[in-house]
Amino acid sequence: MEGVGAARLGPSSGERSVGPSVGLGVLHLFCRVAESTDREAAVRAVKSARAAGDQVVTTSLLGHKADVGVMALGPDMWRLRSLQTALRLSGLEPAASYVSLTELSEYAEELPEEMRQARLHPQLPPDGKPAFCFYPMSKRRVGSDNWYSLDFEERKKLMLGHGTVGRLFRGRILQLITGSTGLDDYEWGVTLFGVHPDDLKECVYQMRFDEASARFADFGPFWTGMVAEMADVLDSVLSA
Amino acid sequence: MEGVGAARLGPSSGERSVGPSVGLGVLHLFCRVAESTDREAAVRAVKSARAAGDQVVTTSLLGHKADVGVMALGPDMWRLRSLQTALRLSGLEPAASYVSLTELSEYAEELPEEMRQARLHPQLPPDGKPAFCFYPMSKRRVGSDNWYSLDFEERKKLMLGHGTVGRLFRGRILQLITGSTGLDDYEWGVTLFGVHPDDLKECVYQMRFDEASARFADFGPFWTGMVAEMADVLDSVLSA
Amino acid sequence: MEGVGAARLGPSSGERSVGPSVGLGVLHLFCRVAESTDREAAVRAVKSARAAGDQVVTTSLLGHKADVGVMALGPDMWRLRSLQTALRLSGLEPAASYVSLTELSEYAEELPEEMRQARLHPQLPPDGKPAFCFYPMSKRRVGSDNWYSLDFEERKKLMLGHGTVGRLFRGRILQLITGSTGLDDYEWGVTLFGVHPDDLKECVYQMRFDEASARFADFGPFWTGMVAEMADVLDSVLSA
Amino acid sequence: MEGVGAARLGPSSGERSVGPSVGLGVLHLFCRVAESTDREAAVRAVKSARAAGDQVVTTSLLGHKADVGVMALGPDMWRLRSLQTALRLSGLEPAASYVSLTELSEYAEELPEEMRQARLHPQLPPDGKPAFCFYPMSKRRVGSDNWYSLDFEERKKLMLGHGTVGRLFRGRILQLITGSTGLDDYEWGVTLFGVHPDDLKECVYQMRFDEASARFADFGPFWTGMVAEMADVLDSVLSA
Amino acid sequence: MEGVGAARLGPSSGERSVGPSVGLGVLHLFCRVAESTDREAAVRAVKSARAAGDQVVTTSLLGHKADVGVMALGPDMWRLRSLQTALRLSGLEPAASYVSLTELSEYAEELPEEMRQARLHPQLPPDGKPAFCFYPMSKRRVGSDNWYSLDFEERKKLMLGHGTVGRLFRGRILQLITGSTGLDDYEWGVTLFGVHPDDLKECVYQMRFDEASARFADFGPFWTGMVAEMADVLDSVLSA
Repeated sequence: MEGVGAARLGPSSGERSVGPSVGLGVLHLFCRVAESTDREAAVRAVKSARAAGDQVVTTSLLGHKADVGVMALGPDMWRLRSLQTALRLSGLEPAASYVSLTELSEYAEELPEEMRQARLHPQLPPDGKPAFCFYPMSKRRVGSDNWYSLDFEERKKLMLGHGTVGRLFRGRILQLITGSTGLDDYEWGVTLFGVHPDDLKECVYQMRFDEASARFADFGPFWTGMVAEMADVLDSVLSA
Repeated sequence: MEGVGAARLGPSSGERSVGPSVGLGVLHLFCRVAESTDREAAVRAVKSARAAGDQVVTTSLLGHKADVGVMALGPDMWRLRSLQTALRLSGLEPAASYVSLTELSEYAEELPEEMRQARLHPQLPPDGKPAFCFYPMSKRRVGSDNWYSLDFEERKKLMLGHGTVGRLFRGRILQLITGSTGLDDYEWGVTLFGVHPDDLKECVYQMRFDEASARFADFGPFWTGMVAEMADVLDSVLSA
Repeated sequence: MEGVGAARLGPSSGERSVGPSVGLGVLHLFCRVAESTDREAAVRAVKSARAAGDQVVTTSLLGHKADVGVMALGPDMWRLRSLQTALRLSGLEPAASYVSLTELSEYAEELPEEMRQARLHPQLPPDGKPAFCFYPMSKRRVGSDNWYSLDFEERKKLMLGHGTVGRLFRGRILQLITGSTGLDDYEWGVTLFGVHPDDLKECVYQMRFDEASARFADFGPFWTGMVAEMADVLDSVLSA
Repeated sequence: MEGVGAARLGPSSGERSVGPSVGLGVLHLFCRVAESTDREAAVRAVKSARAAGDQVVTTSLLGHKADVGVMALGPDMWRLRSLQTALRLSGLEPAASYVSLTELSEYAEELPEEMRQARLHPQLPPDGKPAFCFYPMSKRRVGSDNWYSLDFEERKKLMLGHGTVGRLFRGRILQLITGSTGLDDYEWGVTLFGVHPDDLKECVYQMRFDEASARFADFGPFWTGMVAEMADVLDSVLSA
Repeated sequence: MEGVGAARLGPSSGERSVGPSVGLGVLHLFCRVAESTDREAAVRAVKSARAAGDQVVTTSLLGHKADVGVMALGPDMWRLRSLQTALRLSGLEPAASYVSLTELSEYAEELPEEMRQARLHPQLPPDGKPAFCFYPMSKRRVGSDNWYSLDFEERKKLMLGHGTVGRLFRGRILQLITGSTGLDDYEWGVTLFGVHPDDLKECVYQMRFDEASARFADFGPFWTGMVAEMADVLDSVLSA
C-alpha cells in the first residue's frame, strides 16, 4: 500500500508533474535577507526558473515584513517548489507566502477568448507599472453579510459592479486575481501593478465602497514594493 | 499517590498502549528543514513507523509555513509520538501540527460496513491523487448561526446536503475527516487528496456554498503540497 | 516606602508564603525539549517538588506546540515558581503555561464534603486514565449570548445541565476545573484525564451541545498527550 | 527644519524632560531571564531608578510569558526609558510591556483630595499584599454594546456600580487604574495587589458580572506573580 | 517578456523613481537595537537620507515592542527603501513598520492651499512637541456599522465632527493622517506629536467618543515615545 500511487509521482521520477488542469500554479514568496544571502545564487534561481518556462516577478519590498518579493507562475507545482528551495538555499528566508492558481471566475464565463487567456495565462510583469502590492482576501460569511448564501445572480451583479470600479483604473493598474480556496488561508490572492503607489491606494480605496467589498470582503496582510529585476532588488536591500 | 496509575502506562513498560477504543490516532506534522536535517534519518523514521504498522503519508509543501508534511495514522498515541521524536531528531523542526482521531460521524451510523471501515481505517495515500491539502475546521456558535443549538435532524439534513457536494468530486478527490474536539484547537481535521490542485480548490469552493459551510464553518490555516515518498520529498526541499 | 511590605515577603525570607486562602495554586507548563535538556535534572525537579508536598503530573505531548507537559498543584505560589525555574534550568523551555487555582464553584455550594475536597484538594493523576488534555475557556459576553448578564438561577440551571453531560462519562473521564479569572488569559482551566483519547473527544464533543457551552463558551488552545512518569515522558521525547 | 524643536529636547541636553502635565508616567515591563542575566546589574538598575525618585515594584511571575515583572512610575518618560535600557543591558529581555499614565478618571472629579492623590501619585507596593496581577483593558464598541456611544451620565452610573463591587474587596485588594488611550494597545492598564491570589481572582470575577464589565469590557493578557525585592525575584527565577 | 518594463525601472538605472503622483511616500520603522548596533552607521543613515531631501523623524520608544522609531517622508519609494536598508545594515532590526502616503482626504477638497500643503508636504517634527505616538486604523465594515456603506454626505458630516474634536487640541497636538489602503494592513496611519504624553492620551480619548471613531474605527497597535535626534535616541536605548 505504501504510497504506490505517490511513488509514481515523485519529483525525481520525471514521469509526471502536479499542476492545475487549466491555468497556472502561482507562488508568492516574501523573503527576508540575511547576512549570508548569496546574491549570485538568488539571481541564478530566478534565471533557472525562467529557463524552465516559469514566469518570475521580483520586487523590492518596503517595511519590516520582508525584503524581497518573488511571484512565480507555472504549470507544475513541483517546479514552483524547486524555485522556493533554490531561493532558500541562496539565503533568502521566506517570511510569508501565498499559494494560488490562475482561474476564470464563474462570473466571467462569457468573456472573449483574449480576456480569458489574460486571466489563465497572464504575461507578467506589465510594462511601465513598477508599483506593486499583494493581498489575500475572502468573502464574508457573517450574519446577514454572507456572500455564500447569496444566489448566483446576486453575486454576479455585485461582481460586475466591482469590475466597473476596476475599469476606472485601466492603464494605471493591472490586476490579477488568483484562486486559493482550499489551498491557502484566504480564498483569493490579489496582485496589483500600478504606475504610481497612489494608483494602488486609490484603486483599492474606491473598490472598498463597492458593495462586494464593503459588505462582503475580508482582507489579509498587504505587501508593497517596487518591481525590478532580481539583481536590482537585491542591490536595494543588501547595500545602502 | 504519585502517579501509581501513570507508572503502569509509561512507554517503556511495554504493558499497555494509549489509543482510541475504535479507529486510529492521526498526527499531522508540518516541518521545516534546516541545514542540519539528516535525510537518511528522516527516511528511516518513516520506514520504522511503517514497519511498526502505522501508515505514513509524506508531502512536499509549498510556501513559507513548512517544507515537509507528515501524516501518520496508528492505534497507539505513544507510537505516533515516537515518530514525531524521530523526525525531530533527524533535524526536521515541527512548525505546526494537528492531533485527531479517525471517527464515524453521528450522521453516518447507517453506512454500509465498507464505508464505515474506510473512515475508521482508511488506506492512505490513495492512488493517483498527488495533490494534497489539509485544514482544520470548527462548526460555528455565533448568534443565530449556532450549529450546536440545532437539533440532530437539522444537522443531519445539512450534513447530507454537504455530502452531496462532495460526491460530485468522486474520482477526483478523496476526503478524510478526522475528529479533534477536545484534542486540538479545531473540531475536525480535513485531509484532501486530489488528482490536480484545482480539484482541491474546486471542491472546497463548491462546498463553501453549502449551508453547512456557508453559515456554520470556521476554517483554520490551510496546508498544500504534493504527495511523494519521503526521499523524494526531502530531495525537493533540500536541493534545488 | 520602597517595598517595605514586599521585603518581608521575599522567597528567601522563609517567613511567609503566597497562596490561596483556600485550595491550591495550579501551574500548567507546556515545555519544549532542546538538545541541551538534562534528563536527570528534569526528573530531580519533579522529585523535589513532590518531596516538598506538591503534586506533579507529567505528560508526553503530541504535536508541535510542546513536548513535555507538567501540571503542578500546591499551596504556595513561590514553590510552584521554584519548580518552573528548576525545569527551565534543566533545559526544558516553557512554550506555554496556565496559572489557576482550585476552587469550589458558586453553583456547587451544596455539595457533600467529599466532593468539595475533591475539587479543592484533588489527588492527581487518577488511576488508569493515561489520556490527557487541557484547555482554557471563558464564558462569552457577546450580544445576547452574555453569560455575565444572566442571573444566578439561570446560570445555575445551565451549569447543572452541563454537569449532567459530564456524569455520562463517569469512570471514563476525570475532570478538574480550576479558576483563573484575573490570573490568566481565560477564566477557567479544564484538565481532563481519560481511559482512551476518544473518551476525551466524545466528552468534550457532547458537552458542546449543552447550552452552557453552545451559546456561552469560548475555548483557548488544546493540549493533548499521555500521562507517565517524568523519566518515561523524557524518554519518549528525547530518543526515538 | 531638521528637528529644531526636537534637538532641544534630547535626553542628553538636560534641559527638559518629557512627562505628563499631571500625574506620573507608568511603565510595566515583563522580562525573561537568560543565561547571561547579570543579577547585580539588574538590582543596580532598580536602585538607580529609585535613587532618581521613581517608584519601582518588582515581581516574580508565574508561567511562560515572562519571569520578572517591573512596574515603574515617574514624572519623566526619558527616565522610565533609561530604566528599561538598564534592565535590558543587565540581560533581562522585555517580552511584553505596557505604557500608561496615572489619571483621575472623568467620573472621579468630586473625589476628596486624598483619594485624588492616591490615584495620581500612588505609593506602591502596598504593605502586606504580595499577590500581584496586571491586565490591560478597553471599553467595547460593538453593535449595541458601544461604551463610547453612551452619554456621560449613563457611563458615570455604570462606573459607580463598578466601583461598588471594588469596595467589597477593600483591605484585601489595592487597585490602580492607569490610562493608555493613544499610548498603548488597550485603553487602560489595571494593576492589582492582593493579600492572596484568590483575592485577585474573586475580585476580578465579581466585577465581571457588573454591567460595566459584562457588556462593555474587553480584556488583554493577564500577568500574575508575587511582589518582592528585585534580589529575591531574581533568586526565584535564576536558581532552583 | 521577462520584466522589460521592470528593467527600465530598477534602482540602479537612475532613470526613474517610483513615488506617488502627488504628495510623499511615508515609511514608519520601529526597530530593536542589538549588541551589534553601530551607532555611527545609524546616525549616518539618517543624515544621508536627509541630505537626499527626505524628512526623517527619530524617536526613543517605550516598551518591549521596539527601541527606536524612524519616520521618513520622501517622494521616491526606492529612497525610503534605501534608508531602511542602511538602518538594517547599522544593526537596527525592524520589528514593525508602516507604509503609507501623504494625502488630501476626499472630505478636505475645499481646504485653503496652505492647509492642503500641510497635509501633502508636512514639515516634521513640529517644534516643542516631543511626545510621540503612532497607530494605524481602519474604518469598520461590521453589520450596521459599515462606514463604506454610508453615502459621501454622511461620511463628510461625521469627519467634520471628528475634526472639531481635533481642533480642541490645537497647539498641544499636531496630527498627520496618511493613507495606506492597499499598501499596508490598515487604511490609515495616524502620527501624533504632543507637548505632553497626556495631550496624546486626552486627544485620542476624546475622539473615541466621536461617532466617526465610536462606531466606525478599528485601531491597530500603538507606538509611543519621545522625539529626539538619532544620536540622542541611540544614547537613550544603548547605554543606561
